[in-house]
Amino acid sequence: MARSANRESVGNVLIPWDVPQPQLSDDVHPALADAARAASAAYGRARALHTRLELREEVADGADGTPTMRVDRIVEDAILESIHRSRVNLLSEEAGFVDNGSSVTLVIDPVDGSANAAFGVPLSCFAGALVEDGTAKEALTTWFDTGRAWHARAGVPTAFRTTGRTSLDGAAVCMMRPKRGTQDAWLRIANRAGRIRVLCTTCLETMLVAEGAVDAFIDPGSDTHRIMDLATALVTVPAAGGVLVDLHGRPFTFGPDLTHRWSGVAAATPQLAEELIATVLDA
Amino acid sequence: MARSANRESVGNVLIPWDVPQPQLSDDVHPALADAARAASAAYGRARALHTRLELREEVADGADGTPTMRVDRIVEDAILESIHRSRVNLLSEEAGFVDNGSSVTLVIDPVDGSANAAFGVPLSCFAGALVEDGTAKEALTTWFDTGRAWHARAGVPTAFRTTGRTSLDGAAVCMMRPKRGTQDAWLRIANRAGRIRVLCTTCLETMLVAEGAVDAFIDPGSDTHRIMDLATALVTVPAAGGVLVDLHGRPFTFGPDLTHRWSGVAAATPQLAEELIATVLDA
Repeated sequence: MARSANRESVGNVLIPWDVPQPQLSDDVHPALADAARAASAAYGRARALHTRLELREEVADGADGTPTMRVDRIVEDAILESIHRSRVNLLSEEAGFVDNGSSVTLVIDPVDGSANAAFGVPLSCFAGALVEDGTAKEALTTWFDTGRAWHARAGVPTAFRTTGRTSLDGAAVCMMRPKRGTQDAWLRIANRAGRIRVLCTTCLETMLVAEGAVDAFIDPGSDTHRIMDLATALVTVPAAGGVLVDLHGRPFTFGPDLTHRWSGVAAATPQLAEELIATVLDA
Repeated sequence: MARSANRESVGNVLIPWDVPQPQLSDDVHPALADAARAASAAYGRARALHTRLELREEVADGADGTPTMRVDRIVEDAILESIHRSRVNLLSEEAGFVDNGSSVTLVIDPVDGSANAAFGVPLSCFAGALVEDGTAKEALTTWFDTGRAWHARAGVPTAFRTTGRTSLDGAAVCMMRPKRGTQDAWLRIANRAGRIRVLCTTCLETMLVAEGAVDAFIDPGSDTHRIMDLATALVTVPAAGGVLVDLHGRPFTFGPDLTHRWSGVAAATPQLAEELIATVLDA
């Protein structure tokens, strides 16, 4: 009886948990704060109205050429309304560049960890950086399922700090899953790290680096990340005492060309980042 | 400046987030409910009083011979007080079997995902099963960082359901990290699954299987689990339409011998469990 009930229900169920509003401090830029609140509210409505199957349905191709799930679309639509209210520009994975004639551009990943968000794995977040004159000045990451928020300004030390670890042996490392081309590098890291986690949400994993819960996060060579996947870490991890670098030393840029990809390495210290990179690149 | 502040603070910081009380329904057995509330309160106090470095310090060897971190000790002490209040027996990884002359034994993992709990990765939980006459009758798992709870009675269908997926290709699978002896099996699963996650908390990962957020969880051969790591899944996953089995078909038993180990496989359906096992065992 349980089996047949189960079989009929495949994916056709709602995610039962509420999405709280993010816990924001007063000094978050109003445009970033409004976008983050709009994202949480939209994701909460999406979970209340749509089954897991509907949330993950591919409804379009994004501006970067990858498919857009319904959950991404719903949250991005809410963010578009927000940036028109705030009269700032937007660079986002689905919409691309939206010009509102402002000197300020928000570089946003509406739903980081889209698959987690669609299936109900409670590890997904909003990630937004405020860019002026080609430089990221401020960043906000908010974890949808708890409302926890990490806020930072470029160059201003945060209250939370990285662990300060300098060596890979025994470190706690978050990684993207191994792919066929990166499997050997993945295993070289895994065999030296003390603890390995794969959470499938880069923006949240890099915040765990900033907070000192893990020592590092690495994409071991798959060049998966667009700038909006790394923009919040680019501000927040250094402000917490760590570094964010590309595996091949390529500089991070905020251009509207979304075919541009990087392999992000967030680490508690520059030494740890160097050792991670050497381990990936050294066959 | 940020670097030197960082270096001094390695591990010497508190985890800044509160631990809420678990959200329990009225029909949870009072002894299980009291133990779960005691666990959340104790872990909350532990995070407020002790740095990450102190939480993970090894303070003793448990009844099963593995080291006990301070965070485990603090939460287990609170559970010992709880079972003496409730006048039930306890089987727990640190204390072993505690006989209060009751017909009821709680089989408890006070802190599942101890390393996550100690370092501040917000993925750890209390897991307790109520055993009578050698059979698990009821189970409660509570996620510390959110208060979310999963409650089930043996043989009574739960409101939450597994995904019903029957095949591995493209499935979403949680796994324990690869170890040297299980690396090949780990990669065979990873290369067929659609999505892989490594959350380092078996009890929470098996609840994600029960809830239909992922299709399966597997320890691909390391025989890491004691009975208290699997007792809640043994009740909850079948009640949600899935299965919990051992990789080698060994029956789960609730004896006080904590050297007994299993490789747990939780899956949305018996067919998926069989395919996972065949994939691990087939070289």
